[in-house]
Amino acid sequence: MMEKTKVAIIGMGTVGSGVAKILLDHGDRTARHAGRTLWLEKVVVRDLDKPRDCDLPADVLTTDLSEVTENDEIKVVAQLIGGLEPARTIMLKLLESGKDIVTANKALLAVHGPELFDRARELGRSIAFEASVAGGIPIITNISQCLSANQITSLGGILNGTSNFIVSQMEEHGADYQTAVKEAQRLGFAEADPTMDVDGTDAAQKLAILAHLAFGARVDADKIPKIGIDKLDPIDLRWASDLGYRIKLLAVAQLHDEQLELHVSPTLVKIGTPLAEVRGANNAISVVGDMVGRVFYHGLGAGQLPTASAVAADMIDTAVGRTGITFRTLELWSDKQPTVALSDYAFAKGRFYLRFTVRDNPGVLAQVTNILGSHDISIASVIQREIDPAESTEDKVSLVIMTHLATEGNANQAVSEINQLPSVDDVSVRMRVLD
Amino acid sequence: MMEKTKVAIIGMGTVGSGVAKILLDHGDRTARHAGRTLWLEKVVVRDLDKPRDCDLPADVLTTDLSEVTENDEIKVVAQLIGGLEPARTIMLKLLESGKDIVTANKALLAVHGPELFDRARELGRSIAFEASVAGGIPIITNISQCLSANQITSLGGILNGTSNFIVSQMEEHGADYQTAVKEAQRLGFAEADPTMDVDGTDAAQKLAILAHLAFGARVDADKIPKIGIDKLDPIDLRWASDLGYRIKLLAVAQLHDEQLELHVSPTLVKIGTPLAEVRGANNAISVVGDMVGRVFYHGLGAGQLPTASAVAADMIDTAVGRTGITFRTLELWSDKQPTVALSDYAFAKGRFYLRFTVRDNPGVLAQVTNILGSHDISIASVIQREIDPAESTEDKVSLVIMTHLATEGNANQAVSEINQLPSVDDVSVRMRVLD
Repeated sequence: MMEKTKVAIIGMGTVGSGVAKILLDHGDRTARHAGRTLWLEKVVVRDLDKPRDCDLPADVLTTDLSEVTENDEIKVVAQLIGGLEPARTIMLKLLESGKDIVTANKALLAVHGPELFDRARELGRSIAFEASVAGGIPIITNISQCLSANQITSLGGILNGTSNFIVSQMEEHGADYQTAVKEAQRLGFAEADPTMDVDGTDAAQKLAILAHLAFGARVDADKIPKIGIDKLDPIDLRWASDLGYRIKLLAVAQLHDEQLELHVSPTLVKIGTPLAEVRGANNAISVVGDMVGRVFYHGLGAGQLPTASAVAADMIDTAVGRTGITFRTLELWSDKQPTVALSDYAFAKGRFYLRFTVRDNPGVLAQVTNILGSHDISIASVIQREIDPAESTEDKVSLVIMTHLATEGNANQAVSEINQLPSVDDVSVRMRVLD
Repeated sequence: MMEKTKVAIIGMGTVGSGVAKILLDHGDRTARHAGRTLWLEKVVVRDLDKPRDCDLPADVLTTDLSEVTENDEIKVVAQLIGGLEPARTIMLKLLESGKDIVTANKALLAVHGPELFDRARELGRSIAFEASVAGGIPIITNISQCLSANQITSLGGILNGTSNFIVSQMEEHGADYQTAVKEAQRLGFAEADPTMDVDGTDAAQKLAILAHLAFGARVDADKIPKIGIDKLDPIDLRWASDLGYRIKLLAVAQLHDEQLELHVSPTLVKIGTPLAEVRGANNAISVVGDMVGRVFYHGLGAGQLPTASAVAADMIDTAVGRTGITFRTLELWSDKQPTVALSDYAFAKGRFYLRFTVRDNPGVLAQVTNILGSHDISIASVIQREIDPAESTEDKVSLVIMTHLATEGNANQAVSEINQLPSVDDVSVRMRVLD
């Protein structure tokens, strides 16, 4: 008879239901890949009577967490409650009762990762979190296991499907930001309050996790410089397109001279390159290692089944013992010194797209370019174009400048000074351009 | 003090030298990812005096395999000799002396996989083979571990970088096949005898390994229907381009009604889709799972350091114990019944690109389309075009037909009959079109 590992799920939302379906309907797969059955013993929910899209066997459903913590036969628990509390307290109770945990909760890891991982290590337990970043793309295992012979030198990707969907809508249908958000909400790609997705917080949290794995850098997600897509103007999508680019919300980690630069920002990406072609709610990640070169991953970044696929793979890895090995060797979020220092973002170098709205007076272009020059910013191209009278009745023109490499600090300072020129409106736009 | 696992390398060719460099120059990485040092104790070569691009410590180099097999402190061995013998005998000796093995030799696995895996199981040892397919893309671990909650429903990819390089050369520079092969040889992308690469054998061997992992189907690589690129005519690349396609040597595995279809063939792939944009010696694989949806991987398919990256990751996985777990649970090449039957290729359905060279007589088109119709092949589009007088002085035209779905058997039979028409030259071309 096949060996059996008893497991539990905490939280029966979208992802929890998906995981339950895999365990209940597809036991042959877990048997084939784990050499044992993963037996769903308990599912803990807040409300027994809430309708669910998944039929559970009798006696599995409970509101009492102690039916899991006090059952020593349950070895692996998928903790699928979002947010910080009670998720944190439940994680600690599960660890203390001897469970190995699988979770999809990136916000919890970003904020309480050190505490939870320390506690798991003290207790000889493990936490697996493949589902916390990029849904169906198994990027956690790829970075921490498959590419382990490499020094990763850079990593960049589209980690927030909601933002990518909204920007794709704006680009393909010429919609403005608010209309695109409503469409995303209608189709289930954005939550009622999409703030964390569109302001870059979610991508920054995921980037913190990936940077931690790839560079051994213990990063506070709150400290990652970030700009969201919530201020994105359709005008810049059109300009970008004219210049041969698309705009994507990129999360980037890059090693320069043993310092790590991290940022999340809308970025101009050249049309035809893989990242530029990522549409809708998809995610994609490009990883460069010094041995392997560039490896590119593309897949569904969210959704019930892709995320459940990642959770169930983690449950299998945990049940067979692979997760325990990885968890013990990688020393994640440990008190060991970080191997990489974070760079000062003011000195981070990039190419920039700048758009200014200027009154059409003689000498304005000279004033603008003088300020750029005084901050060591050299210009790759300039386009000045009349503004569509439908958009402005005043005598104004758009001035779009693509720069060569310059530092964030200089670019920021130059744009501030340009904004103070009497002939320049205070609506300047500055975005990174991917090399 | 950090724990130490002693390892050895058999064969100091391109890949072996790359692995030695990683172990000798980058011990910090293996320490970080394995929690221990991988200590290169011995390197076995045929000729001590051959110049190598890697400095080895004294006493490491030997021609005597018994210095490895009789040293019980050596636990993990990278067996990097190509071909079938003596590679097979060395593998068996290593297993019998208690070593866990890492290899990049796909031909050996394709032919002797069952024997070697049975022997490893009997002896409680493991064989890791990430480097045997797609070089730097960690597709073995992704399929056998990361996507383990899925029933994979299809898998397709560009698995032979040499062929892709040659076809890219023909496409981008209008070169004919022989010129492109010479260029590939000059740049090191093709061997002096490139037969196994260009006739589809290498891709079929890799496909057999992937199909085995993804579908539990024990496949004889020799039985996979295959067409190489060695007969590819630049005319068809131009036609494909006119129709909005590129031609790629695709290896495809597809599940239909619980039967598995496998084939390797030059295939028309729509421009703009990820597989069509894979250039030069790159590899790419698209995997569809019923939970995760489509996941796409792109990276360097060969070369010293990408392949060494895969070998070194396997050595780390083996040293820490993950490989042993995977090897025991997956039961690869075991005598258990295959879970999937191979379909009869004659019934495999696909869309086809057909090109006929016909004398410009009245009624030819009717004769051709009648034969297609009599074999249940319906036509999606037809283009008839005069042949460039530079290419033919006779009064001939090219007739290119794109079909709707038809079976391989019917398409094959129809083309044979059309070739026997008095007005048709016997140089017809038939290629699959990716849906």
